[in-house]
Amino acid sequence: MRPGEFDLIARYFAPLAAGFPGAAGLKDDLAVVRPSSGCELATTVDAMVEGVHFLSDDPPDTIARKVLRANLSDLAAAGARPLCYFLSMSLNNSVDEVWVSQFAAGLADDQKEFGISLAGGDTTSTPGPVTLSVTAMGEVEQGRAVRRSGAGTNDDVWVTGTIGDAANALHLIENYGVRKVSEEYPFLLDRYRLPVPRSALGPRLVGLVSAMTDISDGLVADLGHICAASGTGAELSFYDIPLSDDVREFLGKEEKGVESCAIRILSGGDDYELLFTAPTASAPLIEKAARLSAVRVARIGNIVSGDGVRVVSADGAEIEVAAGGWRHF
Amino acid sequence: MRPGEFDLIARYFAPLAAGFPGAAGLKDDLAVVRPSSGCELATTVDAMVEGVHFLSDDPPDTIARKVLRANLSDLAAAGARPLCYFLSMSLNNSVDEVWVSQFAAGLADDQKEFGISLAGGDTTSTPGPVTLSVTAMGEVEQGRAVRRSGAGTNDDVWVTGTIGDAANALHLIENYGVRKVSEEYPFLLDRYRLPVPRSALGPRLVGLVSAMTDISDGLVADLGHICAASGTGAELSFYDIPLSDDVREFLGKEEKGVESCAIRILSGGDDYELLFTAPTASAPLIEKAARLSAVRVARIGNIVSGDGVRVVSADGAEIEVAAGGWRHF
Repeated sequence: MRPGEFDLIARYFAPLAAGFPGAAGLKDDLAVVRPSSGCELATTVDAMVEGVHFLSDDPPDTIARKVLRANLSDLAAAGARPLCYFLSMSLNNSVDEVWVSQFAAGLADDQKEFGISLAGGDTTSTPGPVTLSVTAMGEVEQGRAVRRSGAGTNDDVWVTGTIGDAANALHLIENYGVRKVSEEYPFLLDRYRLPVPRSALGPRLVGLVSAMTDISDGLVADLGHICAASGTGAELSFYDIPLSDDVREFLGKEEKGVESCAIRILSGGDDYELLFTAPTASAPLIEKAARLSAVRVARIGNIVSGDGVRVVSADGAEIEVAAGGWRHF
Repeated sequence: MRPGEFDLIARYFAPLAAGFPGAAGLKDDLAVVRPSSGCELATTVDAMVEGVHFLSDDPPDTIARKVLRANLSDLAAAGARPLCYFLSMSLNNSVDEVWVSQFAAGLADDQKEFGISLAGGDTTSTPGPVTLSVTAMGEVEQGRAVRRSGAGTNDDVWVTGTIGDAANALHLIENYGVRKVSEEYPFLLDRYRLPVPRSALGPRLVGLVSAMTDISDGLVADLGHICAASGTGAELSFYDIPLSDDVREFLGKEEKGVESCAIRILSGGDDYELLFTAPTASAPLIEKAARLSAVRVARIGNIVSGDGVRVVSADGAEIEVAAGGWRHF
C-alpha cells in the first residue's frame, strides 16, 4: 500500500520542483513557464511502458533517469538547453513507496547533472503496466532550433559516441540474462539502462550543423528521417561507424564477428547518440565543440542526391542488411 | 492490424498540427513554442487510462475530446487562453485504424471549438490498457495566472454550471447500463462523456477572482485544495449548490431524494466546472462575464478563517457527509 497521490507528490516530487518558481511547489494543477528574453521553447514528449521500454525488475532510479534522458536527448538534438519537464505517471499496485522514493531519487540525480527541473505532472492508477510520459522543454534562441529538415547534398554525416551498444546489451539480456551482462559487460548494461544525452554538445552545434536528430529508432532509420525531411539521400560507410570495445569483444567472441550483426548496429535503437549533418567546412569547429564537451564524434558518411540510405563497405560495394546478417553486392 | 506509427501520424495527426507552425508538420521529434509578447505559458498535464477514466466501449471521439477537455478545463481555471497541446498515446492491439481515425476526428472537432492546436507527441505500444496523456499550454499575461492560493476570508465561493452530473451519470451507468442512461438521461451521459471546459469564461475572470480551480476531484475536495493552498477554511451552503433538472428528477425518482445522495454531489468528480473565490464587490462583474460567456454561475458559500470545508444546511446546521447518506447536527 502506498500513500495517496497528494502525499506522494508532497513527499517525493515537490522537492524536485523547488528550483522552478513557476511550478508553485506543485500545489496547483498547472505551472507557468516563460522562456528567457529572445528565446523560445523546444518541447518534446517521450513515453515509456513497462515490459516494452524497460523491464519490470529494472532499478526504479534507472527507469526514471532513462525516460528523462530520452527527452533530454531530443532537446540536445534541437540544440536546446534543458529548462523544465512535466511527468505523467500511471502506476499499478506493484509500485510501493520504496519504488517511488527510488524513482524520485533517480530524477533528483539527473536534474542536478543536466540542469533541469520538474515543473508539474499528473499521477493516475492503472491496472496495466507502469506507463511514464515526460514532456520536456528546453530553451533555444528564436528561430535557431535545429531540425531534421536542413541536410544538403555533400554534407558530412556525423555521430557522437559509439553505436549499437544498447541493442547488443538488450540482445545479451534476452539471451543470457541480466546477471551475466552485469558481470561480463557492465559497460553495455549501463549504456542500455542509462543512455547519456549529449546535452552539453547539442547547443554548441547550433549554427554549425544543417540537420540533427538523436538515434532512438536506429542509425539507418533515424538517418532516413533526416533524408525524408530534407529531400535527400545518404551513403553510410559501414566500417567508419564507431563501435565500443565491448561490442567488438562481444561480437568477436560470442557471435560471428561484426558483419554478422550488422543489423543490430545499423537498426538497433536506444543509443541516444546525436546524428547530424554539416558542410565539410564546419568540421574543425564541430571537432572543437566535441572536445569542449568531452564527447567523441565521427564522420560516417555523406548526404547525396536522391533518397534513402545506402550502407557501403570499405570497397564501396553496397551492403544490404536483412535480419540475420548481410549481403554484399 | 493498424499502420505503423509514422503512417498514422502522417495520416491522422499531422493535419491536426497544420495550424501550428512550430510543430513543423510533426516531422520532427519536437515542436517550438513561443508565447505572445507579454505573455507566459500556463502548462498542465492530464492522463487517462482505459478502464479507470474511460470505458473500453466509449466512442473513441469522446475519449479524445474528454482527455483534451480535462486539460482545457485546467487552462480555463488558470485564466489562460488555449494555445497548443502535446499528446502521448500508449495503444494496444485492440486499437485499429478505425479507432484512430475516430479518435483524431474528435480532436479535430474540439480543436475547432476551443481554438487549440496539436503541436507534438509520442506514440508507443502497450500490452495493457490504452493510456493517454495530454500536456496543454495556454497563454496568460505575465504574472496574471490564477492560482489556488489566493482565497481571502469573507470571499464568496462560486461555481459554474451544475454539480454532480458526471458522478450521477457514472452511478447510473454502473447500476443500469449505458443503454438505459442514453435513453432516459441523455443529458447526464453527455455530461459524463463530454464535460464542457469553461474556456471562454476563465480568461474573463482574471483580475476578478482571488483563487480558482476546476472540479475534477469533487466539489468538497477541490475547495479543500483551495483552502489548504490559501490557509483558510470554507463554509458551503448545501441547498445553494446548483443541480441540473436531470439530477433532481433522477434522485427524486430512483433514490430517496437529493439528501440521500449528498455524497455523490459533494464528492463526485469529473464535472469540470470552475470553482472560484472572489470578494463580494466583484460579484456584478463576475455575473457580467458569465453572461458574456453564456455560462451559469452561482454563489454557494464563503471563505472563513480556520481550515477545512464545512457543509451547512438551510438552517445553518452542519451536515456531515459519509458514504451512504448524511447526518444533521
